[in-house]
Amino acid sequence: MNTIGRMFRVSVLGESHGKCVGALIDGCPAGLEFPSALIEAELGRRKSGAKGTTARRESDEPMVMSGVFNGKTTGAPILILFENADADSSSYEKLKNTPRPSHADFASMKKYGRFADYRGGGHFSGRLTAGIVAAGAIAKSLLSKMEVRAHVIEAGGVKINGEPMEDSGFVDVLDSAIEEGDSLGAIVECRVSGVPAGLGEPFFDSLESAISHVAFSLPGIKGVEFGAGFSCARMRGSEFNDAIVDASGKTSTNNSGGINGGIGNSNELVFRVAVRPAASINKLQETVDLETGKKTEISIGGRHDACIALRVPVVLEAACAIVLLDMMLLEGKMKRVV
Amino acid sequence: MNTIGRMFRVSVLGESHGKCVGALIDGCPAGLEFPSALIEAELGRRKSGAKGTTARRESDEPMVMSGVFNGKTTGAPILILFENADADSSSYEKLKNTPRPSHADFASMKKYGRFADYRGGGHFSGRLTAGIVAAGAIAKSLLSKMEVRAHVIEAGGVKINGEPMEDSGFVDVLDSAIEEGDSLGAIVECRVSGVPAGLGEPFFDSLESAISHVAFSLPGIKGVEFGAGFSCARMRGSEFNDAIVDASGKTSTNNSGGINGGIGNSNELVFRVAVRPAASINKLQETVDLETGKKTEISIGGRHDACIALRVPVVLEAACAIVLLDMMLLEGKMKRVV
Amino acid sequence: MNTIGRMFRVSVLGESHGKCVGALIDGCPAGLEFPSALIEAELGRRKSGAKGTTARRESDEPMVMSGVFNGKTTGAPILILFENADADSSSYEKLKNTPRPSHADFASMKKYGRFADYRGGGHFSGRLTAGIVAAGAIAKSLLSKMEVRAHVIEAGGVKINGEPMEDSGFVDVLDSAIEEGDSLGAIVECRVSGVPAGLGEPFFDSLESAISHVAFSLPGIKGVEFGAGFSCARMRGSEFNDAIVDASGKTSTNNSGGINGGIGNSNELVFRVAVRPAASINKLQETVDLETGKKTEISIGGRHDACIALRVPVVLEAACAIVLLDMMLLEGKMKRVV
Amino acid sequence: MNTIGRMFRVSVLGESHGKCVGALIDGCPAGLEFPSALIEAELGRRKSGAKGTTARRESDEPMVMSGVFNGKTTGAPILILFENADADSSSYEKLKNTPRPSHADFASMKKYGRFADYRGGGHFSGRLTAGIVAAGAIAKSLLSKMEVRAHVIEAGGVKINGEPMEDSGFVDVLDSAIEEGDSLGAIVECRVSGVPAGLGEPFFDSLESAISHVAFSLPGIKGVEFGAGFSCARMRGSEFNDAIVDASGKTSTNNSGGINGGIGNSNELVFRVAVRPAASINKLQETVDLETGKKTEISIGGRHDACIALRVPVVLEAACAIVLLDMMLLEGKMKRVV
Repeated sequence: MNTIGRMFRVSVLGESHGKCVGALIDGCPAGLEFPSALIEAELGRRKSGAKGTTARRESDEPMVMSGVFNGKTTGAPILILFENADADSSSYEKLKNTPRPSHADFASMKKYGRFADYRGGGHFSGRLTAGIVAAGAIAKSLLSKMEVRAHVIEAGGVKINGEPMEDSGFVDVLDSAIEEGDSLGAIVECRVSGVPAGLGEPFFDSLESAISHVAFSLPGIKGVEFGAGFSCARMRGSEFNDAIVDASGKTSTNNSGGINGGIGNSNELVFRVAVRPAASINKLQETVDLETGKKTEISIGGRHDACIALRVPVVLEAACAIVLLDMMLLEGKMKRVV
Repeated sequence: MNTIGRMFRVSVLGESHGKCVGALIDGCPAGLEFPSALIEAELGRRKSGAKGTTARRESDEPMVMSGVFNGKTTGAPILILFENADADSSSYEKLKNTPRPSHADFASMKKYGRFADYRGGGHFSGRLTAGIVAAGAIAKSLLSKMEVRAHVIEAGGVKINGEPMEDSGFVDVLDSAIEEGDSLGAIVECRVSGVPAGLGEPFFDSLESAISHVAFSLPGIKGVEFGAGFSCARMRGSEFNDAIVDASGKTSTNNSGGINGGIGNSNELVFRVAVRPAASINKLQETVDLETGKKTEISIGGRHDACIALRVPVVLEAACAIVLLDMMLLEGKMKRVV
Repeated sequence: MNTIGRMFRVSVLGESHGKCVGALIDGCPAGLEFPSALIEAELGRRKSGAKGTTARRESDEPMVMSGVFNGKTTGAPILILFENADADSSSYEKLKNTPRPSHADFASMKKYGRFADYRGGGHFSGRLTAGIVAAGAIAKSLLSKMEVRAHVIEAGGVKINGEPMEDSGFVDVLDSAIEEGDSLGAIVECRVSGVPAGLGEPFFDSLESAISHVAFSLPGIKGVEFGAGFSCARMRGSEFNDAIVDASGKTSTNNSGGINGGIGNSNELVFRVAVRPAASINKLQETVDLETGKKTEISIGGRHDACIALRVPVVLEAACAIVLLDMMLLEGKMKRVV
Repeated sequence: MNTIGRMFRVSVLGESHGKCVGALIDGCPAGLEFPSALIEAELGRRKSGAKGTTARRESDEPMVMSGVFNGKTTGAPILILFENADADSSSYEKLKNTPRPSHADFASMKKYGRFADYRGGGHFSGRLTAGIVAAGAIAKSLLSKMEVRAHVIEAGGVKINGEPMEDSGFVDVLDSAIEEGDSLGAIVECRVSGVPAGLGEPFFDSLESAISHVAFSLPGIKGVEFGAGFSCARMRGSEFNDAIVDASGKTSTNNSGGINGGIGNSNELVFRVAVRPAASINKLQETVDLETGKKTEISIGGRHDACIALRVPVVLEAACAIVLLDMMLLEGKMKRVV
């Protein structure tokens, strides 16, 4: 439930304002040069601090507690922890009886009976993705023949086709959202080259199933589509079908997103996720006081991301790499000793 | 891999032109009056024959081979089989070296080394969904407090807000596609009332993850979105957030689709899937002859659905019910003896 | 729960006196020449009819319903069914309120609330092992470098070191048990050569864990031991430890049974199981009438095995082969296309 | 693989001479008063220091890193770590090319290609059981209606029917083994009262399967038997069968060990495990130098247990409690919020 994968298994743990967050990684092949530099670089991409992201500053220094010996993975479980240092729980105490709209607060209370750690979202916090990023860096290191790349292609209604963001109109939209204490939604696209034809499991463990499963577990994702995605609804078969142009399976178009029948067809894997605007906003919102049962209004102070999607690409890449490595091991295309 | 679920586990089996297709259902609570009538009614909704669906006619009579005694479920695995009677494999022999564009043919060859049963799509056929529908009918019977309802809301570019289809402009579009030997994409929406607050598992087994996992395993699905879905990308938090209006968790809007933090929030569960146009069309398409390695063209004869989405709603409902029942059992909200 | 394995997954189904019993086998590598002859030979070894086994005669003809095409496995799930023909349920009706001592009857009623099919043991019947034997024959065919061999080494208190049984004193003991309407316990030993060093998963999925798990799921097994087994309790380390004699890991003794730290060490895998005497005997036994709550006595008519262990070796081999093949696939030592 | 359980899931991690060992516990019901005192008491029972156990002294202070808030479990994963302080790796460097007889060394090298941490047994060390004991204490706290009790019933060939050990002849045998630098095997029995009738899953997940699975994952276990166990091989059915004496399922004898058909029958659960003598002994032993390929002799210095079984009871209780809690959750007999 807090674990993803069958062969390469990643479990997340921790709370936003507890002692730590982290990941336990089981089934990692032995003999991999532990990718400390890549892990740090990826964590750097995830970090907050840029415009539109929260002011909370965490050092995010990974503490490797097990599974690495003489600089190499051993085959035993790898535990990576991140201490929480800059947690400020003061603003949460007063919110504990007033569930925040479109946050996990209410659903969590119903599931865990008021015992959950509510501070900073607790176990539901986006901070949990630090462990996913670290695990993803390990997965990427093993998937040396694949390249996994995600970026924001639309945010706040503005198309962002390449970097830098500054040249798009997005900065203006972002500034206005920040000023109003509001937040913005976005679309992130992920592309993977080098996925071998034949990857994916039959029926219920299609590549689409596996990738959407992990993508929808990331905070804030409300849609996932592959290849032409929802636009296929307005296409005819003669328009949608990807003509095969050579014996390697290469197609002239890629409306299938690199997947047919749930299995990789050798073309680039392409998918997009919809990232909703952050639920935490400073604007007044209606909710209910669960002590009194009466309506009330709240404004969520604290430090928030105005556009969480800005930090999603590296997390989505990591989640995708974890799933693809797992599939490679299941398929026997990756050895258990490097 | 051909199995979905942890407590209520459904495995699919069979091939389009083999002896049978079916489902093995393990973990079904004991003591349920076996819902023969509902199963038949649901299979009737899935059946072909209407305009836009294949001319292949199968009786689809479920043969219950185990797990039912004196008309009630026993708690032991339930095997339901459907014989294949009206299979016509003649048109497939000539296609076996020319993978059909956007079909599973090429990917399957790469995975299974030419050993897969290629006739009628073999194990990748939409016919496998008959077993899912039967299992879904059992799940629905157990989920007596929920109502699961899906329907086509858009097809061939035409919005279909209610039935009957005849009153929309869709029929004209469908007729023209049939005439041209082409196919049409669509969007199907599913709504579930009665999902208890607190349902869903933490992190990697969110309700969205579980539902998208099974939805993307159905043939032809290329996108899944919850609540506001992809349109959330253009919304601000102040617009997206669903104000909570009473202590039961009811919200004034439902952009979250009934789910927060991956867990049910007591509101209606709402999601949509994009169904691509059927890959099998009569029009000439480019592909490669794998014997010669040269380009060639094919026209796919046989009997096909012009709009597979017309048969998707009952299958999507079934898949959703299977997942929700599994979650109810995991949560301990459903007993193992009725 | 009715399924064993992670990559090579075998699910059992059916009831003793229902329509059929069988197995669904998922994850079987594609391209294997389907081993019909071996399956029949193994089923022949399992068959009743010899002295000490039940008089129930079933043809045990395997019906292969899916997953095989042109005589080869396709990679899709293989369903194998066995029809029940010679079921005689007449003697069970009168037993349904008087649970048979040391049978599953009482426990089953408590679990399934009187809904279970009680005829002939229903889903708890030894007849379910037919499917395991068929699946085991497939596993053996794939494990071409291993030899899995089990035989009865002790029965009714008589050591049986080799065949034929007729030359041991066992026949006399068996005759006397049959005459008295009683039954006999036994010990079965299984040896596997060719297990590669390194096979087995860390900690909770040790080879011993995996093998004992499946062995204890077979009806009537009350003990499992590896290598020196329980006699290790009276040994000193200097006596128990197996000296390593060459770089291939060969040891001078094999008290470890071929496994150290849960992982194969290249020596012969050796384990033994204790098979209790059949619970069904003609002698009068005390039990309780659940309708009246009062004590009563029963004598179990019908056709029974006087020594179920005589039919265990082929089943134990099959169960062991299933687990070993699964481990080979997990380890990546076996390809998914033959 | 390093994880046991489906609903209550315990993962072990760490190495004997690395930074730490520990356990990640997922699926723990929310609202449990965190049983710090019981955890410490159980760890105390596991601790070394008594005669016959290693001189290595670890404080074994549990560090609770997540999943507990305001003194109660939250429903999120609980990470418990134990720092390694008293590790002395000096004696292991010289052993790294000479695999110790009946240790995991050789098998591990074959599996992990010399990348495993070999110091002190690394991830294969008995020290890993500290995490199991902590998880077991949590499980016991939740299983308030059950009592799980294990003790050594035979060691070094001496029957030990009750405590104290001093009054049996065992002390003399132990002294002589210590003096000779040798080690002793033993048998540990575990009894559980309060197991509800109906607990256990059908076929492959019988209670025996689940318990033996976890028992055989503990270091040094070479046999597991239930009820009459291996002695059933010499019993007749009329002797083995447990007469049922009342409607609660109580039986006059308990040769079945509380389990029929894999499912609890309401009587006491009884099983025994064979614990081999510790592999690490000071006596000279034959092995092979993997650098030269030649035979050599080693004497294993360092600090070892002369009778590891003395520390097994609390570990076996913990392992058993973990499995039983998991079964209770699967059965829906335990709520997910206390």
